[in-house]
Amino acid sequence: MLPTIEWKDGRVVMIDQRLLPHKEVYLTCTDHEQVAAAIEQMAIRGAPAIGVAAAFGLALGVSKLKSAYKLEEKFDEIYSRLEKTRPTARNLFWALERMKAAFEANRLVPLENLKDVILEEALAIESEDVDTCRRIGVWGKSLVRDGASILTHCNAGALATAGYGTALGVIRAAFEDGKKVRVFADETRPLLQGARLTAWELRKLGIPYILITDSMAGHMMRQGEVSQVIVGADRIARNGDTANKIGTYGLAVLAKENGLPFYVAAPFSTVDLSLASGQDIPIEERALDEVRRAGAHLTTMSDAPVRNPAFDVTPAKYITSMITENGIALPPYDKSLPDLARLKKA
Amino acid sequence: MLPTIEWKDGRVVMIDQRLLPHKEVYLTCTDHEQVAAAIEQMAIRGAPAIGVAAAFGLALGVSKLKSAYKLEEKFDEIYSRLEKTRPTARNLFWALERMKAAFEANRLVPLENLKDVILEEALAIESEDVDTCRRIGVWGKSLVRDGASILTHCNAGALATAGYGTALGVIRAAFEDGKKVRVFADETRPLLQGARLTAWELRKLGIPYILITDSMAGHMMRQGEVSQVIVGADRIARNGDTANKIGTYGLAVLAKENGLPFYVAAPFSTVDLSLASGQDIPIEERALDEVRRAGAHLTTMSDAPVRNPAFDVTPAKYITSMITENGIALPPYDKSLPDLARLKKA
Repeated sequence: MLPTIEWKDGRVVMIDQRLLPHKEVYLTCTDHEQVAAAIEQMAIRGAPAIGVAAAFGLALGVSKLKSAYKLEEKFDEIYSRLEKTRPTARNLFWALERMKAAFEANRLVPLENLKDVILEEALAIESEDVDTCRRIGVWGKSLVRDGASILTHCNAGALATAGYGTALGVIRAAFEDGKKVRVFADETRPLLQGARLTAWELRKLGIPYILITDSMAGHMMRQGEVSQVIVGADRIARNGDTANKIGTYGLAVLAKENGLPFYVAAPFSTVDLSLASGQDIPIEERALDEVRRAGAHLTTMSDAPVRNPAFDVTPAKYITSMITENGIALPPYDKSLPDLARLKKA
Repeated sequence: MLPTIEWKDGRVVMIDQRLLPHKEVYLTCTDHEQVAAAIEQMAIRGAPAIGVAAAFGLALGVSKLKSAYKLEEKFDEIYSRLEKTRPTARNLFWALERMKAAFEANRLVPLENLKDVILEEALAIESEDVDTCRRIGVWGKSLVRDGASILTHCNAGALATAGYGTALGVIRAAFEDGKKVRVFADETRPLLQGARLTAWELRKLGIPYILITDSMAGHMMRQGEVSQVIVGADRIARNGDTANKIGTYGLAVLAKENGLPFYVAAPFSTVDLSLASGQDIPIEERALDEVRRAGAHLTTMSDAPVRNPAFDVTPAKYITSMITENGIALPPYDKSLPDLARLKKA
């Protein structure tokens, strides 16, 4: 599997996810503004991946500085630009805050050394993300039985992370252990991340899958064709309420109604212990034309009134357990998440 | 509003629903094979509308007969062709059976007179359908309060019937009474009947609407933006289990979870008292490319494995009440539906 994003010769290179699966084109960003635009326009997407992209974007911006004159002001400018790209995924802010801490701890070192320190921090965020996903896979695969038929939504795979994936990482780890698995991939309107990205990843991995429209998920559950649901997350509040791609809430309700386990797989960089509940999670509303179109195809009148919330919040009560890099969190999450988070720091 | 389908100068003319809303093109069928193909390819769709189309197709086939030689055999051949077009909507079989009864009651009259009788029966099915929808509207509008925000799925409007509509007929009747209403229209993947047809109809009627992807419905309910759900039906079993466009089951579960009423609006021609439950309703699986594409746009790999059930079954327990032309049926439906059906014959 090709890397989702990498630092290469002083530039940030990423596969342009808008063009998949039809074209595998790499986008090279030579300044932080290009990285910010790539995040906004979803050339790169997926909570952990945009965290890595933001870190690389910040390192790229700092690497271009010619002098330490007004250094903090310049840093804040780059930071603010990247911070404004997308509001929901916690990982974006988590990565930027971590980069800022590295900057503040080293702001008095000579500029060229500071650039190295900042880049090292971004590269650490990247490589830790891959490691984190593998650990999520190891914990999560115990929840996947041989012969499982797993429904997933959107793309929480290698493309949504620095590599390996969260929800798809769990499935992949079970598959690599020799378990027979089958995936139902929701196409995930409006931007079709399931049809375009998850199907493409699963094919590359050789994992059997069936693509369905989002509206078919309930029928498949009721027909007994699904044994469990595993999704990623964009932001998890302290009580376990989870923001994820629009449609996730509906799947969680349908899973409960059909007696199926519903798992969220996510790293702690997605967890926002500062928020008491999902009510406080900002939900991005994206461009209305995303709903009026499917790819290049206009599906309705060009000026039809539409809504386009990109995420919804699944209340914690629908979530059977959460698969993190430190272990599996069980309800009540306001106890288990802080406990597991502390384990990380230990 | 233009007619969905009409008999005109010995031919069957229908608006080609595949091309809406971008083009308003009328399709003229000069033989029953063309009508059958139009039903199969969904140039015309919606349970009541395909019932009318099948009746017109049969009348068209009979009108072309040159002699009464092997009359029953020829009739059966036309009948069989039309009967095989689509398996789920009860109305198709209901209309054909009614046409067959008219044929059998008159098979000994001279051929030219028989042709007239058969055409009269088809025209009666058409005009009764419009009347039936208006009656559904009158009964149903009492369930729509002033200020209602109604979620609907697929298209159960004028285009799905000979005119006026079932679920949209209820909304329209409330709107025509001066009630303030707002409609959330699900786009309805894969064939986008909500985005293409419901949005187009609501605009023509001047009824405020918001188009959303299917996956947004649950979020809108949970946010308190939806006050009730009204959908049409393709086949209703004796116990009230209802087959309707894929995704309906999920909406019913979400409505229940959010404490919202969920109504089915349908004529008795959709009710199949011969089936004990929804388990016996045949569910059509359509061409796989419908899922791989949105209009002309290929959304995934051209050979991605997909499933494409066109309908799902909503168990009766999720249905608050059913709006028929004879009144509102309340649970238990195995009592209320036969009772109201008898009222019709009286």
